[in-house]
Amino acid sequence: MSDFVIDWQREARTGAAEAIFCEGKSLDQIAAILRSAEGRRLLLTRLSAEAFAALPADLAAGLDHDPASRTAVFGEAAVPAEATVAIVAAGTSDLPVAREVARSLAFHGRGATLIADVGVAGLWRLMARIEEIRRHRVVVAVAGMEGALFSVLGGLVDAPIVAVPTSVGYGVAAGGRAALSGALASCSPGLVTVNIDNGYGAACAALRLLRAIDRAVGER
Amino acid sequence: MSDFVIDWQREARTGAAEAIFCEGKSLDQIAAILRSAEGRRLLLTRLSAEAFAALPADLAAGLDHDPASRTAVFGEAAVPAEATVAIVAAGTSDLPVAREVARSLAFHGRGATLIADVGVAGLWRLMARIEEIRRHRVVVAVAGMEGALFSVLGGLVDAPIVAVPTSVGYGVAAGGRAALSGALASCSPGLVTVNIDNGYGAACAALRLLRAIDRAVGER
Amino acid sequence: MSDFVIDWQREARTGAAEAIFCEGKSLDQIAAILRSAEGRRLLLTRLSAEAFAALPADLAAGLDHDPASRTAVFGEAAVPAEATVAIVAAGTSDLPVAREVARSLAFHGRGATLIADVGVAGLWRLMARIEEIRRHRVVVAVAGMEGALFSVLGGLVDAPIVAVPTSVGYGVAAGGRAALSGALASCSPGLVTVNIDNGYGAACAALRLLRAIDRAVGER
Amino acid sequence: MSDFVIDWQREARTGAAEAIFCEGKSLDQIAAILRSAEGRRLLLTRLSAEAFAALPADLAAGLDHDPASRTAVFGEAAVPAEATVAIVAAGTSDLPVAREVARSLAFHGRGATLIADVGVAGLWRLMARIEEIRRHRVVVAVAGMEGALFSVLGGLVDAPIVAVPTSVGYGVAAGGRAALSGALASCSPGLVTVNIDNGYGAACAALRLLRAIDRAVGER
Amino acid sequence: MSDFVIDWQREARTGAAEAIFCEGKSLDQIAAILRSAEGRRLLLTRLSAEAFAALPADLAAGLDHDPASRTAVFGEAAVPAEATVAIVAAGTSDLPVAREVARSLAFHGRGATLIADVGVAGLWRLMARIEEIRRHRVVVAVAGMEGALFSVLGGLVDAPIVAVPTSVGYGVAAGGRAALSGALASCSPGLVTVNIDNGYGAACAALRLLRAIDRAVGER
Amino acid sequence: MSDFVIDWQREARTGAAEAIFCEGKSLDQIAAILRSAEGRRLLLTRLSAEAFAALPADLAAGLDHDPASRTAVFGEAAVPAEATVAIVAAGTSDLPVAREVARSLAFHGRGATLIADVGVAGLWRLMARIEEIRRHRVVVAVAGMEGALFSVLGGLVDAPIVAVPTSVGYGVAAGGRAALSGALASCSPGLVTVNIDNGYGAACAALRLLRAIDRAVGER
Amino acid sequence: MSDFVIDWQREARTGAAEAIFCEGKSLDQIAAILRSAEGRRLLLTRLSAEAFAALPADLAAGLDHDPASRTAVFGEAAVPAEATVAIVAAGTSDLPVAREVARSLAFHGRGATLIADVGVAGLWRLMARIEEIRRHRVVVAVAGMEGALFSVLGGLVDAPIVAVPTSVGYGVAAGGRAALSGALASCSPGLVTVNIDNGYGAACAALRLLRAIDRAVGER
Amino acid sequence: MSDFVIDWQREARTGAAEAIFCEGKSLDQIAAILRSAEGRRLLLTRLSAEAFAALPADLAAGLDHDPASRTAVFGEAAVPAEATVAIVAAGTSDLPVAREVARSLAFHGRGATLIADVGVAGLWRLMARIEEIRRHRVVVAVAGMEGALFSVLGGLVDAPIVAVPTSVGYGVAAGGRAALSGALASCSPGLVTVNIDNGYGAACAALRLLRAIDRAVGER
Repeated sequence: MSDFVIDWQREARTGAAEAIFCEGKSLDQIAAILRSAEGRRLLLTRLSAEAFAALPADLAAGLDHDPASRTAVFGEAAVPAEATVAIVAAGTSDLPVAREVARSLAFHGRGATLIADVGVAGLWRLMARIEEIRRHRVVVAVAGMEGALFSVLGGLVDAPIVAVPTSVGYGVAAGGRAALSGALASCSPGLVTVNIDNGYGAACAALRLLRAIDRAVGER
Repeated sequence: MSDFVIDWQREARTGAAEAIFCEGKSLDQIAAILRSAEGRRLLLTRLSAEAFAALPADLAAGLDHDPASRTAVFGEAAVPAEATVAIVAAGTSDLPVAREVARSLAFHGRGATLIADVGVAGLWRLMARIEEIRRHRVVVAVAGMEGALFSVLGGLVDAPIVAVPTSVGYGVAAGGRAALSGALASCSPGLVTVNIDNGYGAACAALRLLRAIDRAVGER
Repeated sequence: MSDFVIDWQREARTGAAEAIFCEGKSLDQIAAILRSAEGRRLLLTRLSAEAFAALPADLAAGLDHDPASRTAVFGEAAVPAEATVAIVAAGTSDLPVAREVARSLAFHGRGATLIADVGVAGLWRLMARIEEIRRHRVVVAVAGMEGALFSVLGGLVDAPIVAVPTSVGYGVAAGGRAALSGALASCSPGLVTVNIDNGYGAACAALRLLRAIDRAVGER
Repeated sequence: MSDFVIDWQREARTGAAEAIFCEGKSLDQIAAILRSAEGRRLLLTRLSAEAFAALPADLAAGLDHDPASRTAVFGEAAVPAEATVAIVAAGTSDLPVAREVARSLAFHGRGATLIADVGVAGLWRLMARIEEIRRHRVVVAVAGMEGALFSVLGGLVDAPIVAVPTSVGYGVAAGGRAALSGALASCSPGLVTVNIDNGYGAACAALRLLRAIDRAVGER
Repeated sequence: MSDFVIDWQREARTGAAEAIFCEGKSLDQIAAILRSAEGRRLLLTRLSAEAFAALPADLAAGLDHDPASRTAVFGEAAVPAEATVAIVAAGTSDLPVAREVARSLAFHGRGATLIADVGVAGLWRLMARIEEIRRHRVVVAVAGMEGALFSVLGGLVDAPIVAVPTSVGYGVAAGGRAALSGALASCSPGLVTVNIDNGYGAACAALRLLRAIDRAVGER
Repeated sequence: MSDFVIDWQREARTGAAEAIFCEGKSLDQIAAILRSAEGRRLLLTRLSAEAFAALPADLAAGLDHDPASRTAVFGEAAVPAEATVAIVAAGTSDLPVAREVARSLAFHGRGATLIADVGVAGLWRLMARIEEIRRHRVVVAVAGMEGALFSVLGGLVDAPIVAVPTSVGYGVAAGGRAALSGALASCSPGLVTVNIDNGYGAACAALRLLRAIDRAVGER
Repeated sequence: MSDFVIDWQREARTGAAEAIFCEGKSLDQIAAILRSAEGRRLLLTRLSAEAFAALPADLAAGLDHDPASRTAVFGEAAVPAEATVAIVAAGTSDLPVAREVARSLAFHGRGATLIADVGVAGLWRLMARIEEIRRHRVVVAVAGMEGALFSVLGGLVDAPIVAVPTSVGYGVAAGGRAALSGALASCSPGLVTVNIDNGYGAACAALRLLRAIDRAVGER
Repeated sequence: MSDFVIDWQREARTGAAEAIFCEGKSLDQIAAILRSAEGRRLLLTRLSAEAFAALPADLAAGLDHDPASRTAVFGEAAVPAEATVAIVAAGTSDLPVAREVARSLAFHGRGATLIADVGVAGLWRLMARIEEIRRHRVVVAVAGMEGALFSVLGGLVDAPIVAVPTSVGYGVAAGGRAALSGALASCSPGLVTVNIDNGYGAACAALRLLRAIDRAVGER
């Protein structure tokens, strides 16, 4: 009834290629999109292990799937350059989203350092790695529950910081709302935020920043 | 149409005397309550400068009113003992609530140390006073916006900590909801919380704790 | 991609050891954490019967798992001392959370008395046990639905009371929001609250207080 | 542009006459309605002291206005019969709504007993009057904050109980939402609820009940 | 760890026996409650077909279970008297809740007439049965979606009306919130409301009223 | 710092001219917009009596201001054609919004019939005018509180119906949320809705439809 | 216990036949409705593939079921006339709702053009088809996430536009709330909205519009 | 009772100096902060015309106050460099927040171009200036209501974009919630967001990025 219209020019226009968000799409729709993309590169997000296993074998064979982050790369892998992004995750449960950030950056050829288990309930863990974090051009902070990590990082680091609230938590934190509020209402000015669990979006924001830096350096 | 029924036994039963919450009461009602309390002691909360100024002169003369915290003491002042409670406020705007805590404790004869402007966006300010905070039996933490102070304190101090979210903030923090979520969803276990702007309630919680300590010490 | 960084010093710093919240962690993550903890003691919360059954046999054998409260103890059991905490649960459906409180206290060597089915719709049931409740240093109250138990208890007992709203209920009570509001908005001053279903957090709050009492007694 | 169409038959059809809710109506609209009602009886609700003072003098002269409850009676007063309704209010701040119940009942010729300051934080105050409450055919309970009074009353009294949550409170109780949840989620079955601050609506519900009783008695 | 404390006197005190709400209780808990009730009568609500099928055979044999309303009667059935309650349901999807009302009334010996598919989108269906509805002492109205049925009924009938909002609906109606608001904010005064899907609660409210009528008639 | 960029082509493109929403604009901004519009026609919405009175006299003289609807016409008035739109308002308090609809239509040369005080609590009032309503091409229904009028109208009339929820109401109806839900969740299919209090938007929707009709008639 | 009362006259009264919303109805209820409709035509919505497969074979044989849109036609198919409605869907995930619109229109004999994958992140895709969209009498716009498509379309097209927010999205967009707000709060006046995922309702709104146009043309 | 502790090192640490948020601070507090800052530079935000007028004359004389944006500069003005930030505002009502962005950047010596009245309801206005926007290193987009501008800009520009939702709007847009959802749920990936009306925060985010660019350029 309707063909898929992939926005192949989006990377040129906005610095990040269109990705296929698989949640809520039927297997038939995903397969049709992949077949229409033959010979090109595509990033798939929210592709669960179950959905991946149920894809036609020939299509699955062409995908580099990572079950933890539910991402898959269709077509050739990119070789990430040196790590210019620090991905800082509060807890073990935030790792799937943190890995979505890392995989999305890698797809676009950008390297990242992933630093985990540095929640503020044990502040010394974060302080032990703060110098390492400061050596990156951009910081992506990933945290659920109350998201206090965002404010603490914001007071310690002068790089651009993109907060990714995660849906880790229960009660008033269920669904990530408390962490989102924690990022938006932060007393540390200059923090910016993306939607809950939106690791891909945070990666795209970092790509925009890195591209702006590259351009400025290039203009010199 | 109806007489006031003050619960004079509440202090014996629960460790804190009944206080008169003045917001939403008419001047006539407040005056009638004070007249019925003649010769006793009462704490009034949320008594604005405007309401205080509009009270009959003889009643106003008998009140020790603090406009910043909107509290007033009717009857004799108590002499606070040494400071066993540390009241830690994130910012200048949180001071009215922090002072409500201090004044409510003082009414019951308990001393407190008020430490302000230690929000986590400038972590060094908190670290500079952390040893001083640790010297108290109970900590009451007062913060608005995202309330990250609660989690950071919770990871640094082993005393009982009562979080008081304040309505300081705007946007998603309006009304204190973000700070409340920050306290309830905290990754630092063992934090407990009272209602937004409820400085009196936090003082009552501290009173319960101090009384439990006194009793245990007395039983020795 | 990332090693686990358990905060082994947390107990010294805050009075309660770090616990592993298992909901949202993969079996691989839980297993890796347990293996890294060899020879130490750990408390696991939100470990469902299904997850426990799916753990490697050697790890499962080293766990004392309680399916009702979804808690498990890794390493040696502690011998709880006499009961200083009264855990008061409104209804049968609140027992899983109440048991999480009891098990978390026991892990840290603290004894508790569990009193259930004392909801305020049948007030006589609570009154029949109120003297017994008053004999404890701390009260943890566990209730879902509208959480009226918190206010009634708060008016009857002068000990510190930690309210744990539970997600028992439906309609406007779904997810525990009504019970949480019942605790925060209570007309009984001095109540403090933790997140919905957060039995472990309430236990940690009780631990902080008991430790404060022990220290005060020790200082004498 | 449009004439007012008062539903004069409503009392015959539903047991309560149409009342004029004055909040949000202009003074011109209120005056026009009163002039169109000449020679009949009308109840006005939410008519503030300011609005009353600003009405044309001839109209104001024909109104029996009660500033506390913001109600006014236009036309002849009814002589209330013996008290068949107990109006039970938790605190002093709930009195305006409680009086709206009483005045609305009186307008329809029904008597009521108003019992105030019986909040559950001081349970003995309620217990002291419980026998008196039980002597009425219907109970209207009025409470703000967490509304625990509703559940406690529901467990003690077998008469029909209409809960009126009030907007008394702040933080999570602001606007009356916590009290409303407290009534709807109550563990005491058989409680029924009206909108926040809707004293008139509760009176109408009581009128429906009393009318059903009268009819049943009459059919004997 | 804890025995069940059923409130056997509740019927004497409040006009309705304690019912066992089975959702959220384990099969073991339900079975233990039933065994402790041997020789008495009990109403069980929210007992799904799956839970019923999983109960021990001897206990299941003693239950009269209705899968549509998820109710079961333990012990002897009551013989309902003539129908004094009209249960009016907006649509087919509201029938499970409407049947919970009917079964709960029957358990207490009260008869009811169930009138369904009278939603206001086809007003003639309601008008065709309005005289029949008016012949009952009490009306229980059951509706999901926007709950407009409540207001229309409220304007046509002068009997006491208890609104039961149901969780039938999606989008803004999901979970029954729109229907609940429809009942509480109704322009028809004198409507009263219970929690979403709370058929048992509505029945208890009707029982309170019928008891008040019986008593008044008896006092004659 | 910035000139105003009025979208003078909007009427050609979308069937309704750009209107100036005055709430939240400073008097200086409104005055500057009017001066820049010299010689053209403009509709102003949400221009309060206070703001109108504070405008420079020469500008005010050029405005036809209606305080009830807070609308003003700048430039020549249009002569409305015969009434093709029925504006149906539930209550007197909904008239300001209903008049905003009428004035916005008149500005574009469309006539309307305003029918008020036909709320469903007195259904006979609506039924008495239903044939008159049916004689119009489009119906705009304006209601606050629970918005049951929308569903009832939707079942009686086959014309396009645009629901305008109003912020008339309190408690759960405060701000118009209950009426909005009542419109969106309606059991009468084919209702469409605009934002709360958005009389201008409803008029624009009617304009789109009338234009579609005119075009279809013209194409014949 | 209750027979089904289908409103067979609804099409005559409101322009669209009553449809059977299958979600939340038991298979028995659906089967009974179909049997009672023998010889007539019915549209079924929200009939999942699982429910369809579980229907009795003879009933299933009489249904034209479309799994993507979860709609089924019972009785004879209608032959859609030329396409007068443009259905514009933002993304692939919005297609199920868009198809519900198309199938509901077809059931009533109305043709539609479905235009998909024109989300505003790639504005050129929408611009490429804008002339085609403008050739239809009515536009139904279907979008999830933030629903920005509604505002952009509203500024480009002067036909009546019905927005259907979908539940496509996560985080703050979960359940369709962000898209609904995007439609209601749109800066493009004259947009109208139906409930989230309510494709059938949008079709009914279009039917009302087309019928109004047909009547006007006929009256000429 | 407490001295102010300004974080003078914040600029060195995070790239933006601490600003004084004046809303919710008393005049005495603001005056005390200014006196303690003698000889330094400070930015004040949310300083209303009324508060500015009420400051002691000597302090007011030392402030460069802008009433539209409610910002003031204490101490020497900075000379902004060439414009590297494009501030794009949807409507006239968004200008106060847009000016807060511009003034906060200017305080730190950064130039900006302010482009207003480019809301998407008149898309041509935005398209006419898109090339100009693209010539800046960073884009700050300011919009209220549904915030569709964010998504459209995100699809047209590859620079980093910081969305500032404003509280311009009513009904579901009241308080800025719809615009915030519009930014967070955007279908244009790589957008980042700050709190509602947080122009200062958006400026700080831009400062972080410009500093990262400067550093990268410097490292070359």
